[in-house]
Amino acid sequence: MRAVLADGAGGPEVLAVRELPDPEPGSGEVLLEVAAAGLNRADLLQRQGFYPPPPGASDVLGMECSGTVTAVGADVEGWSVGDQGCALLSAGAYATHVTVPAGQLMPVPEGVDLVAAAALPEVAATVWSNLFMLAALRPDEVLLVHGGAGGIGSFAIQLATELGARVVTTAGTAEKRDFCRTLGAEVAIDYHEEDFVEVVEEHTGGAGADVILDNMGAAYLERNVAALATEGRLVIIGLQGGTRGELDLNVLMRKRGAIISTTLRARPPEEKAAICASVVEHVWPLVAERRVREIVDTTVPLDDVRRAHELMESGTHTGKILLVMR
Amino acid sequence: MRAVLADGAGGPEVLAVRELPDPEPGSGEVLLEVAAAGLNRADLLQRQGFYPPPPGASDVLGMECSGTVTAVGADVEGWSVGDQGCALLSAGAYATHVTVPAGQLMPVPEGVDLVAAAALPEVAATVWSNLFMLAALRPDEVLLVHGGAGGIGSFAIQLATELGARVVTTAGTAEKRDFCRTLGAEVAIDYHEEDFVEVVEEHTGGAGADVILDNMGAAYLERNVAALATEGRLVIIGLQGGTRGELDLNVLMRKRGAIISTTLRARPPEEKAAICASVVEHVWPLVAERRVREIVDTTVPLDDVRRAHELMESGTHTGKILLVMR
Repeated sequence: MRAVLADGAGGPEVLAVRELPDPEPGSGEVLLEVAAAGLNRADLLQRQGFYPPPPGASDVLGMECSGTVTAVGADVEGWSVGDQGCALLSAGAYATHVTVPAGQLMPVPEGVDLVAAAALPEVAATVWSNLFMLAALRPDEVLLVHGGAGGIGSFAIQLATELGARVVTTAGTAEKRDFCRTLGAEVAIDYHEEDFVEVVEEHTGGAGADVILDNMGAAYLERNVAALATEGRLVIIGLQGGTRGELDLNVLMRKRGAIISTTLRARPPEEKAAICASVVEHVWPLVAERRVREIVDTTVPLDDVRRAHELMESGTHTGKILLVMR
Repeated sequence: MRAVLADGAGGPEVLAVRELPDPEPGSGEVLLEVAAAGLNRADLLQRQGFYPPPPGASDVLGMECSGTVTAVGADVEGWSVGDQGCALLSAGAYATHVTVPAGQLMPVPEGVDLVAAAALPEVAATVWSNLFMLAALRPDEVLLVHGGAGGIGSFAIQLATELGARVVTTAGTAEKRDFCRTLGAEVAIDYHEEDFVEVVEEHTGGAGADVILDNMGAAYLERNVAALATEGRLVIIGLQGGTRGELDLNVLMRKRGAIISTTLRARPPEEKAAICASVVEHVWPLVAERRVREIVDTTVPLDDVRRAHELMESGTHTGKILLVMR
């Protein structure tokens, strides 16, 4: 198979497409011929040497893909050669072939193109597991999503809006803010010019945000807590603004608030399988009805993987960047 | 009625027993003739001027009591004059009479003395709501309780042990540590001499504590996060070690951990009623079987309320200090 490895740690130039032996599906796994792989910010961190794959996982980059089943290992039920699916992976998706634990393979939602389906696993599993399974976002609650024009953000806006929550978001350009509003955000905040704490307070009549989905970590910690409503939940899934922050526990206590920080990648396979099953049950029907959509910014051929990373680093994209295998 | 007010803010000397008009039960309330009131650390903070009662609540101190129903307001079901009960209150318990929202009045568990029942509402509601309703402590999980010899701590050790969790605790004297072990703690840590992070790590084979019940706030924040297990929950219910702390979100994220900070007092009546109902359902049967016990350190007559506060401030007590009304 052809697959992308990082030769050392560094910029996009360390990425190289290599010829490797085809993997074989173990017990409980299927082999996928990959149609497309989705890029994630974690891939950039891994390439830079900051985010090694979990123990036992492949060194091939890539945490999600779509494709066609070409072999089925022992003890797999419900999947046959020729089936199409999309998968949540610990690693290995930037390749023409990859083995997938069957619990992490999901059907392609009805009406979605096989290549475009590679845009769905990470965003759907991340948004669903964090906002709904973990933070228990309810209809009529207010969600603040930071970075609403990104892959996670744009899916979170759509799904939360569709399920009856009110969404406030932040984005860095007027074009991105317009995009967020078309997805359903009531308010899109220019974080360069406006204080999101003030805007959230104003927009909610002083109540604050019931749930915040954050990718900035330390840089936003105090202001996120300030923006929380009573019994609000701050869910931190990225640390783009650093890791060490100050926290005033008195503020958190007066709000009876919670700060939760998670990653999807490090979870054990049985938790990933439970999340995938819940996504298929709750999210896929909305995707099939096109009430919530995958958002693809650009597709890039496998051989141009360096360009794909450069594009992601530029931050100019809205939605997902996909690597296509042929 | 006779009731305790604070004349200004300060030491125990500001406390005074006053003659006030008897309260009358409003709709949804009952009037209790108080047998005893439990002391709580929050009472000391209120006396010092740091913790005013919620808007609309009485200025009379005291957040829990036991007594006998002497009048029933409109729209109250299930309570009659002459019934005995114990109550979770926002304020007003240090008095011979107090009005209680009916949802916050609980029956006295079978076999418990009416005076001793005043030791139960705050500890039972705090421990049950935080450890079980909020942090979802499960059998076989490890609970770290700070201050295991206090009112909250001693009840938490008993209840968690009884429900199948393994308990590690901290306490400041050898006598208190022995007491904690008799209540069921597997390990009682001398926090003057030992690092609780190391002891927890050692005792759990490196896994850490699944749930931590903390009353120290900022002073323990980083070490508590360090002591958490994967998917651990740190529940902060006191800030005796300060409010502003540093937090390394990378550590929290790698553990997929949660930090929750709550108070019982500020919750709306319907939440308090839900907690009380859950306590009566889940905790009272264990108290009636004496598998979990109220722990009374001392009873003090109402007129000696200053001495009761001095005793609590000395920190030498194990279990609850009660004010008795006659």
